[in-house]
Amino acid sequence: MALLEHIRIVLVSPLYGGNVGSVCRAMANMGLHDLAIAAPRPLDMDEARMMACHAGHILEGRKEYGTTAEAVADRGMVVGTSARGGLYRQQAVTPREVAPGVLAAAEAGGAALVFGPENDGLGLADLALCTDIVEIPATEAVRSLNLAQAVMVCAYEIFTAAGTYVPPEEKTPPAPAALRERMFGLWRTALLEIGFMDETKADHMMLGLRRVWSRGTLTVDDVRILMGIARQMQWAARMRDEG
Amino acid sequence: MALLEHIRIVLVSPLYGGNVGSVCRAMANMGLHDLAIAAPRPLDMDEARMMACHAGHILEGRKEYGTTAEAVADRGMVVGTSARGGLYRQQAVTPREVAPGVLAAAEAGGAALVFGPENDGLGLADLALCTDIVEIPATEAVRSLNLAQAVMVCAYEIFTAAGTYVPPEEKTPPAPAALRERMFGLWRTALLEIGFMDETKADHMMLGLRRVWSRGTLTVDDVRILMGIARQMQWAARMRDEG
Repeated sequence: MALLEHIRIVLVSPLYGGNVGSVCRAMANMGLHDLAIAAPRPLDMDEARMMACHAGHILEGRKEYGTTAEAVADRGMVVGTSARGGLYRQQAVTPREVAPGVLAAAEAGGAALVFGPENDGLGLADLALCTDIVEIPATEAVRSLNLAQAVMVCAYEIFTAAGTYVPPEEKTPPAPAALRERMFGLWRTALLEIGFMDETKADHMMLGLRRVWSRGTLTVDDVRILMGIARQMQWAARMRDEG
Repeated sequence: MALLEHIRIVLVSPLYGGNVGSVCRAMANMGLHDLAIAAPRPLDMDEARMMACHAGHILEGRKEYGTTAEAVADRGMVVGTSARGGLYRQQAVTPREVAPGVLAAAEAGGAALVFGPENDGLGLADLALCTDIVEIPATEAVRSLNLAQAVMVCAYEIFTAAGTYVPPEEKTPPAPAALRERMFGLWRTALLEIGFMDETKADHMMLGLRRVWSRGTLTVDDVRILMGIARQMQWAARMRDEG
């Protein structure tokens, strides 16, 4: 999706190659491709490649900048992430709240999401560059997320807000009432024939079965399977009677 | 939160200790504590402990079961995760859709979320144990998430749905209109005194400034800072005139 191409992930001085690789994989999952590293430190690139998995192209295509300011210089919206208290935290919003704005900014020219180093997060000078501050919801007890996990949650919210994901659908349509009724009729007959119930209890029992099979939507395929079972029950009962 | 205690994360035969450790950290971030490993294989526990970070207690407290069936035996709702096509995918819902149901099941006795091995996900026999199948939204191009990332997205959605997270709030309340008007009045005077504009252009210019400062909500603290600047401008202009 074109919009997602205008969203840059900026990692400031990450320490661990494995995390950078995991960030690449998370980005690829969520349709992001523009990775920048600001004020880079030496990284274990073997570990990075291993964790990047099928997202090696994002790792190899990363851009490096001397400073965070340079990494975001061409961006309108600059979103910083922080898990720490202090002045900036009071202005923080959640990733879900900021996602629509990030997409709007991407359309208007470009947005960046900035993540600090693993050990101490974004410093004040980098937070000052940001137009928005995001805090990821987490328990007070363990508030700091792994770097790649933080990127994933933000990228996931943006990808979800973009609405490009098409949820899987049932292959067969929901069964219409007439087909369902034929199926229940077959079961009624079959359950009588195998001697599971007699006529006096049949209506009550069938209501129970209807309840079980109406909790979710039955598809045409589902109903066909159930009809097949009823017919086979009837066949078995007749074989028994003839035998 | 008591509800989250009744939600179990089940990892089926995970391969990498680092991933299991990362799962523990993600769980701790999102308030989950019940980790089970089904059909365990040998794990690099040093790596697991390193990635678990402050969530070592979840790692050490994990329960191990011979089979997935045993790991979920006491659970009402069993949610399987799948990134693969096939029969089950057609019935998949998103983590956001399933989250309220997981919390309801947790209240009713217990829920489990089941994640397959890194290399090939949940098998058919394990998927058959599940009452619900979840697929995490991702691009068609790179649909498979890292194990710990998949756990994070699901746990994050459940934690968010639980509504226990209290977003940070501004420390000072929004500035009331009267205070804002005093501030704009001070700026008008100050900008005239420093010679930035004359009376003929003042109203037009002040409309521009009002627009800039009305894009977000100004707090009482924000307005006090801006009033301080205006007063200092006036002071500097008077010093200049007297000097």
